[in-house]
Amino acid sequence: MIPGILERLNAGEVVIGDGGFVFALEKRGYVKAGPWTPEAAVQYPDAVRQLHREFLRAGSNVMQTFTFYASDDKLENRGNNLKLTGAQINEAACDLAREVANEGDALVAGGVSQTPSYLSCKSKADVKAIFRKQLDVFIKKNVDFLIAEYFEHVEEAVWAVEVMKETGKPVAASLCIGPKGDMHGVSPGECAVRLVKAGAQIVGVNCHFDPMTCVETVKQMKEGVVKAGLKAHYMVQPLAYHTPDCNCQGFIDLPEFPFGLEPRILTRWDMHKYAREAYNAGIRFIGGCCGFEAYHIRAIAEELAPERGLLPSASEKHGSWGAGLEMHTKPWVRARARRDYWENLKPASGRPQCPSMSVPDSWGVTKGHADLMQQKEATTKEELEQLFDKSKTH
Amino acid sequence: MIPGILERLNAGEVVIGDGGFVFALEKRGYVKAGPWTPEAAVQYPDAVRQLHREFLRAGSNVMQTFTFYASDDKLENRGNNLKLTGAQINEAACDLAREVANEGDALVAGGVSQTPSYLSCKSKADVKAIFRKQLDVFIKKNVDFLIAEYFEHVEEAVWAVEVMKETGKPVAASLCIGPKGDMHGVSPGECAVRLVKAGAQIVGVNCHFDPMTCVETVKQMKEGVVKAGLKAHYMVQPLAYHTPDCNCQGFIDLPEFPFGLEPRILTRWDMHKYAREAYNAGIRFIGGCCGFEAYHIRAIAEELAPERGLLPSASEKHGSWGAGLEMHTKPWVRARARRDYWENLKPASGRPQCPSMSVPDSWGVTKGHADLMQQKEATTKEELEQLFDKSKTH
Amino acid sequence: MIPGILERLNAGEVVIGDGGFVFALEKRGYVKAGPWTPEAAVQYPDAVRQLHREFLRAGSNVMQTFTFYASDDKLENRGNNLKLTGAQINEAACDLAREVANEGDALVAGGVSQTPSYLSCKSKADVKAIFRKQLDVFIKKNVDFLIAEYFEHVEEAVWAVEVMKETGKPVAASLCIGPKGDMHGVSPGECAVRLVKAGAQIVGVNCHFDPMTCVETVKQMKEGVVKAGLKAHYMVQPLAYHTPDCNCQGFIDLPEFPFGLEPRILTRWDMHKYAREAYNAGIRFIGGCCGFEAYHIRAIAEELAPERGLLPSASEKHGSWGAGLEMHTKPWVRARARRDYWENLKPASGRPQCPSMSVPDSWGVTKGHADLMQQKEATTKEELEQLFDKSKTH
Amino acid sequence: MIPGILERLNAGEVVIGDGGFVFALEKRGYVKAGPWTPEAAVQYPDAVRQLHREFLRAGSNVMQTFTFYASDDKLENRGNNLKLTGAQINEAACDLAREVANEGDALVAGGVSQTPSYLSCKSKADVKAIFRKQLDVFIKKNVDFLIAEYFEHVEEAVWAVEVMKETGKPVAASLCIGPKGDMHGVSPGECAVRLVKAGAQIVGVNCHFDPMTCVETVKQMKEGVVKAGLKAHYMVQPLAYHTPDCNCQGFIDLPEFPFGLEPRILTRWDMHKYAREAYNAGIRFIGGCCGFEAYHIRAIAEELAPERGLLPSASEKHGSWGAGLEMHTKPWVRARARRDYWENLKPASGRPQCPSMSVPDSWGVTKGHADLMQQKEATTKEELEQLFDKSKTH
Repeated sequence: MIPGILERLNAGEVVIGDGGFVFALEKRGYVKAGPWTPEAAVQYPDAVRQLHREFLRAGSNVMQTFTFYASDDKLENRGNNLKLTGAQINEAACDLAREVANEGDALVAGGVSQTPSYLSCKSKADVKAIFRKQLDVFIKKNVDFLIAEYFEHVEEAVWAVEVMKETGKPVAASLCIGPKGDMHGVSPGECAVRLVKAGAQIVGVNCHFDPMTCVETVKQMKEGVVKAGLKAHYMVQPLAYHTPDCNCQGFIDLPEFPFGLEPRILTRWDMHKYAREAYNAGIRFIGGCCGFEAYHIRAIAEELAPERGLLPSASEKHGSWGAGLEMHTKPWVRARARRDYWENLKPASGRPQCPSMSVPDSWGVTKGHADLMQQKEATTKEELEQLFDKSKTH
Repeated sequence: MIPGILERLNAGEVVIGDGGFVFALEKRGYVKAGPWTPEAAVQYPDAVRQLHREFLRAGSNVMQTFTFYASDDKLENRGNNLKLTGAQINEAACDLAREVANEGDALVAGGVSQTPSYLSCKSKADVKAIFRKQLDVFIKKNVDFLIAEYFEHVEEAVWAVEVMKETGKPVAASLCIGPKGDMHGVSPGECAVRLVKAGAQIVGVNCHFDPMTCVETVKQMKEGVVKAGLKAHYMVQPLAYHTPDCNCQGFIDLPEFPFGLEPRILTRWDMHKYAREAYNAGIRFIGGCCGFEAYHIRAIAEELAPERGLLPSASEKHGSWGAGLEMHTKPWVRARARRDYWENLKPASGRPQCPSMSVPDSWGVTKGHADLMQQKEATTKEELEQLFDKSKTH
Repeated sequence: MIPGILERLNAGEVVIGDGGFVFALEKRGYVKAGPWTPEAAVQYPDAVRQLHREFLRAGSNVMQTFTFYASDDKLENRGNNLKLTGAQINEAACDLAREVANEGDALVAGGVSQTPSYLSCKSKADVKAIFRKQLDVFIKKNVDFLIAEYFEHVEEAVWAVEVMKETGKPVAASLCIGPKGDMHGVSPGECAVRLVKAGAQIVGVNCHFDPMTCVETVKQMKEGVVKAGLKAHYMVQPLAYHTPDCNCQGFIDLPEFPFGLEPRILTRWDMHKYAREAYNAGIRFIGGCCGFEAYHIRAIAEELAPERGLLPSASEKHGSWGAGLEMHTKPWVRARARRDYWENLKPASGRPQCPSMSVPDSWGVTKGHADLMQQKEATTKEELEQLFDKSKTH
Repeated sequence: MIPGILERLNAGEVVIGDGGFVFALEKRGYVKAGPWTPEAAVQYPDAVRQLHREFLRAGSNVMQTFTFYASDDKLENRGNNLKLTGAQINEAACDLAREVANEGDALVAGGVSQTPSYLSCKSKADVKAIFRKQLDVFIKKNVDFLIAEYFEHVEEAVWAVEVMKETGKPVAASLCIGPKGDMHGVSPGECAVRLVKAGAQIVGVNCHFDPMTCVETVKQMKEGVVKAGLKAHYMVQPLAYHTPDCNCQGFIDLPEFPFGLEPRILTRWDMHKYAREAYNAGIRFIGGCCGFEAYHIRAIAEELAPERGLLPSASEKHGSWGAGLEMHTKPWVRARARRDYWENLKPASGRPQCPSMSVPDSWGVTKGHADLMQQKEATTKEELEQLFDKSKTH
């Protein structure tokens, strides 16, 4: 019996999460951008298993089931023409995560995320029923703990936590928000308090923002929790993209999303800084989301090797701070085999006709128009404005 | 029996190459940057097989054996502490390539690359003996054709071609040079002429430079060949990094090599432009090298789908020109589901403190000091200058 | 008799300020960077007069006396080896401003700025005596109103206002602070309240930050004043440099200050946006500081021509929104003769090896070390740290 | 009697030119962008005199008459609604240049530039007659030497030189071309040879390109002249804008021309590098064109002070390499008072949404369409294409 997530965190251990499956598998050809649904767990198990293994090898202590957007309402909404049920996908994903977790000492975490049902204003009972369906599979497959992640509204996340608590498993809750809070304007501190009160033992954020922004957001969560006299563990699983130019809705609104984000990808050295910053902020569950590949997770594990007392398996194939270059023929390449070289490098984009920051794209849409946007009748700014005008006259 | 490489090219078909194995597997944790040697073919066959499959699925018609730097002299030189012989690695790599090639209609190409023996001024006979050892495995494993690739000096590439011609297999020859020619200053046109005269049926370039620079270089090769009254097919397998700031030695001399290249990674839309440009230049064997991942190859296949009459398997998971975004909730994200949006996007780096171009780093070293650099006694600029001074006094 | 500053502002008129004399005259060769003192008013009256005329012609309604840093304590401190007294300089500057003001309908404003005496903790009485000496000249020369400008500490600015009020002239007070407030951490709103209570009829900011940041700061001042139930007019005279990367001390701490600021210079079109933004924020005294040249002031006057009902004289030599290009030989240059072209242009720097943002340089110095810095014994970071350590042991 | 231009150059002296009048006076409000004509010599003599003085004080040894585009055909063509004759303008400009030249030891150079008559295919005799009219004034006013500058076609420049030679004055000839040669494709080397053969004693380039590109072009001119067994002196008067992204027609085709060039302005430190590079290339007449202000010229004079044995007057107000900062209160600003700080600074633009390079704008127009473009009937790309199509059918 390996120790559970709470045992590890209570003991002060650093728990390293995994990286983002949908973006990595999209690039490999197994996930479709747009729907972002995980049918590949059934269709291409070898590809999913391989990605789990890369993260395990890179140092991940948690294998998250590849079940993002795998609720029945989402699968239906996103045009799942394979006729796979949510249950089939969730079961296959659990088996793959467990198989690879057992190759090391990793834990399996079953994850649920925000639902179209909530966005289209279904009742609390309806939304909870959606979560319960996924959780039934996770309990049957005996995952080690549960994560409610990628929620833009703390209200929906609280509902998810409430359902999860019924299972008796440890519960983590992670919002996809930044320092300005959730989409209803609830601050990170207040969000965290609500989630802890609902029963989450671990709270934090994932996706939507770059590492430094996410760490800053979790710091605010921690301040809120401490101020309220509560206790929790903290987690962070950010993007592997630099997004200093985001507005409150994160990278979705950047003009580069999702097919032009390459120039923003973090280097392994950026990840060292992130891991240290997260650790210094008192966060102990440190992982990644969209854009993270195995070498990014390895960088976290290498940065925190002194604290954790071990290097990940994949460091077998990685010289610390560029040490692998020591044998290079050219002396100026050998001279790069040192920490301060890489720490201070300001890498060029090779794109002199591109800017360094974008203007987020949101057509000046105000909050509260979620329903209208759900209708999907507008594809130009003009059409949207017409819809808005029409909606106001009713 | 599927048609061979020359049948396909003679018929005017587009042949799509695969992407770069060492860089992709380095990120996944199976190749060590610095040595860049392919022990993983023996150690981690699942990881190598998976990468082959991704490229096959993305549209590759050629599975190159994962045998880069797998000559005995290189393996020894690079500190191969696994005690694997070149033969073991080359055999395993051939088996993996064949296994996946047979899952589709791809060809297997056995590849050799430049040797430390040549750089340290071994004799023509010695260098040829190195190549012959690798080729013996390729013949035993019955690869479909041979590629001499990643040669900085056309002289050594000609020797490789000469040995390859002894086997009777079709021979392709690819230099890692730019428009300024090889490291002895031989122009691309003249390089191509020498390779064709030595017997290569396909000539071109790979690695070291970005796609547009590589296409330009192959254009010059073609002009040289045509001017000489010769005939050849042309291939190009560039970096997936923007490198407008390279000097004649390519991306090795950029300060970002090899651990800070992320901001330079090409988007899939850059790949469309590359594929079209290569096609328009009369190049018909179009693939990639370091930095290329499956989705880059898929973009080539999608761009040339009208010419080829088919989409790759992986397009099952890819809406053309962003079509997968059509169902997005937010209308401004839906508005990105069109070709001109992505064609015209100038993606930001999210790195306002970084420049867009670097100054190549070569310490002002003049040509002809290869031997001196081989000695590896210098790790600072001062030490190198001392060595130079000493060498002049002898 | 032309109407005074308060008559104009009370009538709702837009009053256009002038641009920055020390920076413009430094480039022309008449002011030394470092001391930044205005001996040229005596030494090179033609050069100073010409600059006044350019601003008048560009639309300025206010000629500020060229008396920046012309207090006796500053002149001494800055190595005034010409042995000119403050009185001599201030008198000459008043005469020049009046001469040119009378060529149009401009007002003359006598200005005082922060003193070394305050920074080195002289008494309130001592500091006020310094101001009084300059004001004596302004009264003798009968300037139209007074400006206390370029103060980093609201406390010193309040002292200046108190002395100015003794003269009976209208008083404007302008701090060189940003949205984070003064160097003692007093917020913009609170600063404004204190200045209004001390008797200033016009409050605002100048220098240290770019136009948009300055407008934002004055907005906060206005909110503070309104909340306190007080009344005031507002002024803004920002840098003509883009400084999004400043910390709380403004452009002094940017690594480019003062000899590498060129890439940050605002275009005339940036000035249009600034003028509109300032006007929309309810600011009616709109001018410029360091970096502003005549064409920047003209752009303000052209943007606000509809509100003011007139164009400046210098518009005789300027086609609105690029109209002067209409007769160009090349059609693609003619096509630039329109507003939306220039409004949407994102001008390139032509410097691909430069970043777009810098890291402000302040050696991590904490507040309250002003005295220590005054001593000028440190010129390296190490020396400063030693001084700090020594100061702590006392 | 002060020594003439040829005496100085023959003696190996460095002769420092002045900066660009039309751009500087446009910013000050006295020249209209578009026409760029010098009516201000008559209208605003104080403003023109002041600018001459600034350059003299900065170290200029040559006062060029402010007669750019002051030929009668140009004045008429550019909508000269002041009804000033070319003769009036040219006379006034000569008087101003002479007045200021006499305040120091500077020479007066009378300048002619390319004519609309040439572009609209007038005869050689007609074009020469245009030049002669301007030269008559220069001779009457007894200028010290003549410059034919800003010619895009060497043919027209040769005609100008031929007319100038008739006067007996020393003749300099300067084209506005880059390394790719003149608008008819004549190489810089060949252009120089033709000009020298026509009688020019000094040849070089001005305007259109940045300093390094101009120096490179003059180097090619020198190689051509030397190869032809001829002799000449060399001059260079480039833009003060970085233009690495220009095509063969220079900065006119950059999208930022002429109202968005600010981010490209060279710093004084860039000017040091330029002056050294020009000197090392054997160029001895070193000045500036559009964008050059007095401090740019002073930087040239300061860089070459060791060779010239003197500092310019304006260095009275300038600490060498930032020395004026030595007395700054903040130690990190004091730390900027040293050469290597400014030499190595990579100044940021403060514009994160702007690129570092632009795509030159020329609508894909091929050479030889000058006549068509002269007609000025097209203002959109579509209209131009229609004109082209129509012109082909004739």
